[in-house]
Amino acid sequence: MLPGTEDKKHLILTGDRPTGPLHLGHYVGSLRNRVKFQNQYEQYIMLADAQALTDNMENPAKVHDNVMEVALDYLAVGIDPVKSTILIQSQIPELTELTFYYLNLVTVARLERNPTIKQEITLRNFERDIPAGFLTYPVSQAADISAFKASLVPVGEDQIPMIEQTNEIVRRFNRLANKDILVECQALVPEIGRLPGVDGKAKMSKSLGNVINLNFSPAEIKAAVRNVYTDPLHLRVADPGHLEGNVAFMYLDAFDEDKAGLQEMKDHYVRGGLGDSIVKARLEGILQDLLKPIRERREEFAKDRGQVLQILKEGTRKAREIAAQTTDEVRAAIGLKHF
Amino acid sequence: MLPGTEDKKHLILTGDRPTGPLHLGHYVGSLRNRVKFQNQYEQYIMLADAQALTDNMENPAKVHDNVMEVALDYLAVGIDPVKSTILIQSQIPELTELTFYYLNLVTVARLERNPTIKQEITLRNFERDIPAGFLTYPVSQAADISAFKASLVPVGEDQIPMIEQTNEIVRRFNRLANKDILVECQALVPEIGRLPGVDGKAKMSKSLGNVINLNFSPAEIKAAVRNVYTDPLHLRVADPGHLEGNVAFMYLDAFDEDKAGLQEMKDHYVRGGLGDSIVKARLEGILQDLLKPIRERREEFAKDRGQVLQILKEGTRKAREIAAQTTDEVRAAIGLKHF
Repeated sequence: MLPGTEDKKHLILTGDRPTGPLHLGHYVGSLRNRVKFQNQYEQYIMLADAQALTDNMENPAKVHDNVMEVALDYLAVGIDPVKSTILIQSQIPELTELTFYYLNLVTVARLERNPTIKQEITLRNFERDIPAGFLTYPVSQAADISAFKASLVPVGEDQIPMIEQTNEIVRRFNRLANKDILVECQALVPEIGRLPGVDGKAKMSKSLGNVINLNFSPAEIKAAVRNVYTDPLHLRVADPGHLEGNVAFMYLDAFDEDKAGLQEMKDHYVRGGLGDSIVKARLEGILQDLLKPIRERREEFAKDRGQVLQILKEGTRKAREIAAQTTDEVRAAIGLKHF
Repeated sequence: MLPGTEDKKHLILTGDRPTGPLHLGHYVGSLRNRVKFQNQYEQYIMLADAQALTDNMENPAKVHDNVMEVALDYLAVGIDPVKSTILIQSQIPELTELTFYYLNLVTVARLERNPTIKQEITLRNFERDIPAGFLTYPVSQAADISAFKASLVPVGEDQIPMIEQTNEIVRRFNRLANKDILVECQALVPEIGRLPGVDGKAKMSKSLGNVINLNFSPAEIKAAVRNVYTDPLHLRVADPGHLEGNVAFMYLDAFDEDKAGLQEMKDHYVRGGLGDSIVKARLEGILQDLLKPIRERREEFAKDRGQVLQILKEGTRKAREIAAQTTDEVRAAIGLKHF
């Protein structure tokens, strides 16, 4: 049973680090779900700019500017600010305050054992030069989640240790407070796994140039699809093709709603006699159709950034009220109320 | 030349972790100086309750209650809230926000190399179970100092690495911001070293029972002086006595203003023919005279704790204004202003 079919309405906290434009990977992995979730749950979407600084301190302008860009992406895909609360993390200082207190509830050794952190440290070549803010960012995530008393957190498989860390802190705090002030959360892992880059690499990233951004022009989409990795053994049209590791078909699996037509095409491809160009033409058509209205809505919203800022301001105000209430309860429980 | 004789008036940040009543060690090491400093400098005195939680999370009530007790000690020794600003750390959440950002400017390895932290970890038997908040507390200190743009920080010799860590963060931040937003500080190491416990142990602590609290009754002072460690070789009055390691004389050095009289007594003691009881009687008289007005002022202030709370509220309000201004500058420099 999916959570949320019970009586109590779940609160979802989700979000992104605003470090670049959102792409199809985000669309499949989270954005598409959020558009659905906003009708089922109370949904808070956080622009995690403060967290993005943990490894972008040398380039804060990038983070700052992408707050607006990512907000435009949100609105473009159909996240409705009436149904979802969009907030800017850094504008809710209570989140840093909770982080500060929770740091006392976690040992350094425990943070170092966090598999997600271990992996990311390797990925970033930090080794011994790990910024303290990077090692401690699971604590900051625990602050974010618990500040809103979120009960559901959509995460990838690899982020599950973060949820466990959050719940450890929640339990430890409640035990100290001798009262259930904070709320444990559960991970909501999407059914569809990660989309690979158009080049077939597992990791999608702007720097690898293997992404299709939501705001790509028709020409950019065309060019990107032309580069989509297929089957290197499929040299002639007549040859039988392979589906494994074939990015064109992976993308079709993710975006083609005509499952029967897609199955026919796959059979034909495997049998031989179907050229890559036909597969790619189908994919391109689907992506152009998918991205056109998103791009157009984005352009519409981008005409009035003042209005978008107003949406963020209102969402942040509403979110801050909740975070401030939780922080107040936390402070009282650990003897930090005097006036 | 002592700092502060220049044109610009220095700002001092000092304070205590409110974990127990203040004692003669505090009086000699810091309180006495603060009563002088408040006439020379702009002085902020912080009740570091949030920092005290780094190793008292299991007992927050102790920290909470000692905020008032330590404030009473301050007022009792002559800290004048008109001249000095007394503030409660936890009531200025901007300090946690700055800590959060500064965590990105320090590596884990750098924190682990901090000699003060290393020593305190040993002292507390933390080993691998170091709470993250304990490892990162130099960053929190950097936040406190820089929030007020303090230029002078009175510390013991052993705390100098903390000041170095603060200045590293300040320089790193200013370089990132490309602007001198934060201010480097200098350590102000008191001339008189630490007072030992009455039992001769280097560390004074309530749990060792070797302290003389500022609020001790005359009978408690008498009993404590009776236990003061002297010269174990000085068995008979006629025997020559030794001054090294003799706590009675160390205390007299710290509190006896009649230096000539004291010198005479020392000579007599070394020569032989002077009993410990006479030395202790002199010491007791001096301590009774020193502590009587302190105790009486303390009792006076303690009659109206509401008024003391009002002093703390006003000091905290004033201090928060400064911290908020600095935090605003910091936020702007790292791209965290949107509205």
